[in-house]
Amino acid sequence: MTANIYFTGGHEAWRRYKGPLLVALKQAGVAAVLSPTCPDPAAVDYLVYLPGTVPDFTPFTNAKAVLSLWAGVETIVGDKTLTQPLARMVDDSLTEGMVEYVTGHVLRYHLGIDRFIGATGWNKVVPPLARDRKVTVLGLGQLGTACAQALAGLRFDVAGWSRRPKEIEGITCLSGADGLDEALARAEILVLLLPRTPETENIVNAATLARMPQGAAVINPGRGALVDEAALLASLDAGHLGHATLDVFRTEPLPAEHPFWAHPKVTVTPHIAAETRAASASRVIAENVRRCESGLPLLNLVDRAAGY
Amino acid sequence: MTANIYFTGGHEAWRRYKGPLLVALKQAGVAAVLSPTCPDPAAVDYLVYLPGTVPDFTPFTNAKAVLSLWAGVETIVGDKTLTQPLARMVDDSLTEGMVEYVTGHVLRYHLGIDRFIGATGWNKVVPPLARDRKVTVLGLGQLGTACAQALAGLRFDVAGWSRRPKEIEGITCLSGADGLDEALARAEILVLLLPRTPETENIVNAATLARMPQGAAVINPGRGALVDEAALLASLDAGHLGHATLDVFRTEPLPAEHPFWAHPKVTVTPHIAAETRAASASRVIAENVRRCESGLPLLNLVDRAAGY
Repeated sequence: MTANIYFTGGHEAWRRYKGPLLVALKQAGVAAVLSPTCPDPAAVDYLVYLPGTVPDFTPFTNAKAVLSLWAGVETIVGDKTLTQPLARMVDDSLTEGMVEYVTGHVLRYHLGIDRFIGATGWNKVVPPLARDRKVTVLGLGQLGTACAQALAGLRFDVAGWSRRPKEIEGITCLSGADGLDEALARAEILVLLLPRTPETENIVNAATLARMPQGAAVINPGRGALVDEAALLASLDAGHLGHATLDVFRTEPLPAEHPFWAHPKVTVTPHIAAETRAASASRVIAENVRRCESGLPLLNLVDRAAGY
Repeated sequence: MTANIYFTGGHEAWRRYKGPLLVALKQAGVAAVLSPTCPDPAAVDYLVYLPGTVPDFTPFTNAKAVLSLWAGVETIVGDKTLTQPLARMVDDSLTEGMVEYVTGHVLRYHLGIDRFIGATGWNKVVPPLARDRKVTVLGLGQLGTACAQALAGLRFDVAGWSRRPKEIEGITCLSGADGLDEALARAEILVLLLPRTPETENIVNAATLARMPQGAAVINPGRGALVDEAALLASLDAGHLGHATLDVFRTEPLPAEHPFWAHPKVTVTPHIAAETRAASASRVIAENVRRCESGLPLLNLVDRAAGY
């Protein structure tokens, strides 16, 4: 049987994904017809989904799954018209890219690299060893766990915080409200890798920033909504928070007039930390189609109640 | 028997090392008298040595060993008056600090971090994954091997080059003259961790720079003399070499008028990559005294013919 796959993204995404998806489906042994248009929703077996492209999932009466090309599914997880199983993207290349971004920026803060770029004098300041540097990762999902482990591999003193208790070798695992206080109080460098949920929105706010040590740095490659932007700026300007590197924002691209751009204690990166690479993401999509066609459970199925 | 140990460094070094050395000797179970002065060279059993502090080793007629607090011993390895066994510093904390410095600056180049510091616009450039980034480490001693392995652990495509053939898991090991050509030709990022010997002096010169790919970066935390400074500047100015981060120099501190300071494609760090930490270095010294007093061979004995 041939699977009808509807690619919901626009022209630009189709240009990037058409080739890699066809290759991946063929390699997975899946007979499929792949199309960027959808004359008959009832005939669609799978949606390969990009955010904001389907206002109403109701017409897809026979769809076996909605397969997101993005890891974050917060924009549709509450969509009442979406009754089909929803799988999010969990892609090794996405994890690898995130680990590289997080490790690079943690080491940048740890080593104080910025102060040497463009320096004009010999000012010998030797950083402590990583084993004496406390880093906290908020969020111990796929990405947070991989980042925490990479940092621990470089001998950083790493704690991770998650909603539910976890155990990860080499990481001080904290959870719950008390755990959050402890995670923040120790964080010389704080990495935000939480999903966006009602509970995590503005988790970095005036109160939580105040719990962090003076001079600490925040790295946010997770979700823009995790940060109360006004509180972050106020803490930087008050000399409490030392610096922030932000990759995600409530509005993207970050508007030209946004105060983050000109702020001397903020580095903006343009949502590059967890860029999905087409070839490997297509292999993940094809594998899920293959599994579903073979009666196997979907990988990376979203827990609709938890929101991720 | 009590070992007489002469600490050859000046007042500032003595202030840093006196306490840690006494602690380490006691923990190693060594009975010792430690002094920063030397009324009777013939009574000295061990010299704890800092570069430039002993013009003539001849009077130390009964010394069992010269124990260097520095990893680099090029300034005394050719000293004809030095007939006593010479051990160099191989300290885990030194290796850890070097791994952190090298990994941090390799990731800085890999991720293009500099372009985002102070950026004022959303310019989405996504770097390749580390697995698609070729890094070459020249020198596969203790430090070079540790750095190459850490980079391979982050999935960089790592080659290492050494004078003699080596085999290290996960690293493409090259050696000899042909191997050097290959090591340079692939090096998007080149890390210099060779010892300073007559063979390695100016190993980065006009000819070797020309073999590197256009836009490549050089990181030198090894020895200042490895680099022909004029050739490096010429390659940067010609638009061939992309950038250099230099931690060591022929003259230190780097003189204020040196062209490296103002060069937009050079980052100067003030010899901080392999800073010896007093506590752990003292443990290494104490262990070697203990071994020698027990009739065991010295650790990290210098091969006087090879020069390191």
